[in-house]
Amino acid sequence: KIHPLTGYRKSCWYEEEIEENLRWSFALNSILHTAATQYQDIALLDTKPFGKALVIDGKLQSAEVDEFIYHECLVHPALLHHSYAKSIFIMGGGEGSTAREILRHKTIEKLVMCDIDEEVVEFCKSYLVVNREAFCDSRMELIINDARAELENRKERYDVIIGDLADPIEGGPCYKLYTKSFYELTVKPRLNHGGIFVTQAGPAGIFSHTEVFSCIYNTLRQVFKYVVPYSAHIPSFADTWGWVMASDSPLELSPEELDLRMKHRIKGENRYLDGKTFSSASTLSKAVRNSLDNETEVYTEGTARFIYGHGKHCQE
Amino acid sequence: KIHPLTGYRKSCWYEEEIEENLRWSFALNSILHTAATQYQDIALLDTKPFGKALVIDGKLQSAEVDEFIYHECLVHPALLHHSYAKSIFIMGGGEGSTAREILRHKTIEKLVMCDIDEEVVEFCKSYLVVNREAFCDSRMELIINDARAELENRKERYDVIIGDLADPIEGGPCYKLYTKSFYELTVKPRLNHGGIFVTQAGPAGIFSHTEVFSCIYNTLRQVFKYVVPYSAHIPSFADTWGWVMASDSPLELSPEELDLRMKHRIKGENRYLDGKTFSSASTLSKAVRNSLDNETEVYTEGTARFIYGHGKHCQE
Amino acid sequence: KIHPLTGYRKSCWYEEEIEENLRWSFALNSILHTAATQYQDIALLDTKPFGKALVIDGKLQSAEVDEFIYHECLVHPALLHHSYAKSIFIMGGGEGSTAREILRHKTIEKLVMCDIDEEVVEFCKSYLVVNREAFCDSRMELIINDARAELENRKERYDVIIGDLADPIEGGPCYKLYTKSFYELTVKPRLNHGGIFVTQAGPAGIFSHTEVFSCIYNTLRQVFKYVVPYSAHIPSFADTWGWVMASDSPLELSPEELDLRMKHRIKGENRYLDGKTFSSASTLSKAVRNSLDNETEVYTEGTARFIYGHGKHCQE
Amino acid sequence: KIHPLTGYRKSCWYEEEIEENLRWSFALNSILHTAATQYQDIALLDTKPFGKALVIDGKLQSAEVDEFIYHECLVHPALLHHSYAKSIFIMGGGEGSTAREILRHKTIEKLVMCDIDEEVVEFCKSYLVVNREAFCDSRMELIINDARAELENRKERYDVIIGDLADPIEGGPCYKLYTKSFYELTVKPRLNHGGIFVTQAGPAGIFSHTEVFSCIYNTLRQVFKYVVPYSAHIPSFADTWGWVMASDSPLELSPEELDLRMKHRIKGENRYLDGKTFSSASTLSKAVRNSLDNETEVYTEGTARFIYGHGKHCQE
Repeated sequence: KIHPLTGYRKSCWYEEEIEENLRWSFALNSILHTAATQYQDIALLDTKPFGKALVIDGKLQSAEVDEFIYHECLVHPALLHHSYAKSIFIMGGGEGSTAREILRHKTIEKLVMCDIDEEVVEFCKSYLVVNREAFCDSRMELIINDARAELENRKERYDVIIGDLADPIEGGPCYKLYTKSFYELTVKPRLNHGGIFVTQAGPAGIFSHTEVFSCIYNTLRQVFKYVVPYSAHIPSFADTWGWVMASDSPLELSPEELDLRMKHRIKGENRYLDGKTFSSASTLSKAVRNSLDNETEVYTEGTARFIYGHGKHCQE
Repeated sequence: KIHPLTGYRKSCWYEEEIEENLRWSFALNSILHTAATQYQDIALLDTKPFGKALVIDGKLQSAEVDEFIYHECLVHPALLHHSYAKSIFIMGGGEGSTAREILRHKTIEKLVMCDIDEEVVEFCKSYLVVNREAFCDSRMELIINDARAELENRKERYDVIIGDLADPIEGGPCYKLYTKSFYELTVKPRLNHGGIFVTQAGPAGIFSHTEVFSCIYNTLRQVFKYVVPYSAHIPSFADTWGWVMASDSPLELSPEELDLRMKHRIKGENRYLDGKTFSSASTLSKAVRNSLDNETEVYTEGTARFIYGHGKHCQE
Repeated sequence: KIHPLTGYRKSCWYEEEIEENLRWSFALNSILHTAATQYQDIALLDTKPFGKALVIDGKLQSAEVDEFIYHECLVHPALLHHSYAKSIFIMGGGEGSTAREILRHKTIEKLVMCDIDEEVVEFCKSYLVVNREAFCDSRMELIINDARAELENRKERYDVIIGDLADPIEGGPCYKLYTKSFYELTVKPRLNHGGIFVTQAGPAGIFSHTEVFSCIYNTLRQVFKYVVPYSAHIPSFADTWGWVMASDSPLELSPEELDLRMKHRIKGENRYLDGKTFSSASTLSKAVRNSLDNETEVYTEGTARFIYGHGKHCQE
Repeated sequence: KIHPLTGYRKSCWYEEEIEENLRWSFALNSILHTAATQYQDIALLDTKPFGKALVIDGKLQSAEVDEFIYHECLVHPALLHHSYAKSIFIMGGGEGSTAREILRHKTIEKLVMCDIDEEVVEFCKSYLVVNREAFCDSRMELIINDARAELENRKERYDVIIGDLADPIEGGPCYKLYTKSFYELTVKPRLNHGGIFVTQAGPAGIFSHTEVFSCIYNTLRQVFKYVVPYSAHIPSFADTWGWVMASDSPLELSPEELDLRMKHRIKGENRYLDGKTFSSASTLSKAVRNSLDNETEVYTEGTARFIYGHGKHCQE
């Protein structure tokens, strides 16, 4: 028997079910804040392995130590592949980190961030110190609304539209923001000529990429001429994550050109992404590449796939 | 696969190793305070099943919803079996709950509480609202010292001496406060005629009672003429707990006499203990009774038994 | 960081949700057998703290090291309080341990055990070595049927009827075997003069006794003249458990008489129960006693209370 | 409260501490076999998320569903970059999967596998059906010995030497098989002209790569002219894993050449690795690349870094 005086295990834990049969647990320093909004339950935890962690409806949204991977990957490839991105629309993104990364681009003149959950936005404004500056930036316009309704009603067009939403779960709140008809009839008409759409695309691991990643890719492939899927391992998510970038203009830049554009356009230095990193991230492994090539399913108003868990919070 | 929208498990947990192979976990509302003192680590947690919980060195000390069982059992039998207890000495008890129960007795004129860890006492004073009144009671004298040194140096005698200490673990800080020689040479000489000693005595379950309960009982049996072991199930401890009361005067009261004394001497009403409850608590089950009868080990300066875990915090 | 060479934690665990916010975990040696019957999922585990454990639908039914507490408490008080019990009917009890304890009584001539789940019975016959002899005893008649239907159809009467069923959960399979009308119209008519009914009665802890224990007690109090509730702490259940014994004949024996009857009637020696133990077990603590006295709810065909979890497997 | 009838959680879990503050848990179907060898504890588990899992000293070694990633990455890049690999020496590799992948190469004439733990080898031979054929292959010579002693005593040289050992932990059993002097004085002299050394190199995630990956890379850089680090996410390890390939001959092949060599030399098709996958795997992300470039530490007989946990079992 172990002597109680000779040390003891950490006693407080955050525990998440990545899948029904798979759990991921972080030792806790403290539970900083909890709240229940009209749409979801939010918690801000201080975890030992990953720092402050934002949890919505029992799912980790982002962790202090590695959210930069997710947000750099979501934002910079699209903005850099655009010849000169001035106006951006974020669907979701209430946490503020996506806006923060966008506002590092010197080319940006206007940023619309449209999240449905005012209380999540307020919660993040109050507690996520790292994004406070972004929320105060004069270029940003914050809208509380359903992103689809908002995009449908707006007349103006954007250089880049970014989907920072929960995964497309059938019957779930965000499903309608991933369908072929939404991309065709709502997103594409709101892009300027040469415009780029990019969305987070769920888990992209060797097994998990079939949950939604391959289908988001295939749906976008029906609507846009050029579609680039890419992925990166995010430690706190215990998985590789995926994003898909799409446009009717070519999306081809060498690592060197990407590095050059980063140097000229982005304030400060990226921690995760550079030209080579993107080149690696957009070269998928054999198994995932084959799955994506052979995917036949398309998200339409009538179909969907289920996913267990992770994902940004919901929108509609 | 389970849909993330249809509800999710509680995500934050306090987890304790009752034994090496046995864990006990409470869902958490929040981590109220944590601190590290010279002697130990302290945390005050807000748990879903048991309310506020005081944890020292990874071991639950007492939980809001059921600490009354432990403290009523520790205090009232001894004070009530005494003909008229005026002066009390508590070894340990920094949490303040033992003092609180003692001060409910109208007969009390003087109460000395001697705990070694000033920071634990201050922590409990600040955060355990329910014991605040006790800490301010003019009858109470709070001493920060090793209880053994304090008792040895004091000249005065007490009607009841109470041991509210961590379990006797060989090499542990409290071991010396459970030995035959300590009882004989330090405790007994500080008891008034008719005085009673009572101590918490560790787990007393059908299997766990051999860890320290039977040996504390047998050690006291070597020193006092009358010795009464008793026990009660404490839900948050996931076990039945034991206490031993000892005196050179007879310890016999009928349930009716106990009820009568409670009515006359104690302010307010007990939640757990009354005459019948004590009668049941002091009638041990066959297996435990036999073990205690047949126990041969005695705690001396040179021997001890190991216990995994639980127990009040340490003293010396 | 801890060095992987200096020892590591046990890696395989059985985990049970005692309540939604409370978990209880045992380190595992192995998973001996698993099966899915028409009615329920069964597993036989080899656990480190409690030996072999039978788990049905994710709930521990009985553990090798302490099932004797449950089964001695369920069987012996009723059989011993009866003047000379010859015939017994068990509702449920497929595990075989209840039968095993009954068959230790030399007075027994006939034992009917009626369980609805043949596969559970076969599973237990095969794997629970300790009960094999009981299953082969010529005095035992094993019936696979709904216990209510079976009792209604039978003409014969019994000296003792024993309920070894899952707890009464509204909408659950066993609820109908705990109602006032069932006791009145089905059980009582099948008892001989001087007959005794006894049932397991769910958790009986200081907080948990209001889940079903107090209501089972109150329901039986409507039907029988003499009703005796009692309880015992069962370590592997992480709670105190309850039973209720009822009869239209007085149920009063002194501890000495109980001990004498045990000595004469029971083969071998009890490990848990003797006269004093029963005296203690049937003297409930103040809080539980008051709850039971003041309980007003009665299980009828139209009402029920929910309980989370534990309990013998289901019957109907 | 959740109704016990409406479904319950999986109750048996394998739990691993990835780091002190990070746990990873798999639901279990069964515990297939456990054993304790002279050197280590072994278990073969049947897990729900990852199939059969080999666990040594509380650390997952490989899981049925994704071990192909680890073993394809360990074996094929080195064998393919070699102009025509005929003879191979494996340090460790007792599991057999490394041998299995090697033996798929038609060029192989001789394979020496040298593992120190005979019982682990026997255990894997018996239970890992997928590797049985490899163990019977006439080209394979199995040696039970310390790999360093074996390599030192052998006169013959090899085309490829493969390190499939536990991570280099100071004071740990495998540390001496990762030092500059071992590489210089033992490994290199046993390589044929044009020979290649490759070793597993521990976790290579954005944070974890500094544990041993960067230092193994830097150590090999002191000894070989050409050194190629690469990595891949392995879901069951909850991390990205690293390997380092080193030679005094250039290690440059285009994805197309790699694909061509695979087609000609390897029987059957790889599941994970092809030319593009290796290109992506060997293009590390910015943060990891910078760390590796700037690493100054070298493993010598006198220094080491600690790592918490994962890693192949030990050798010496």
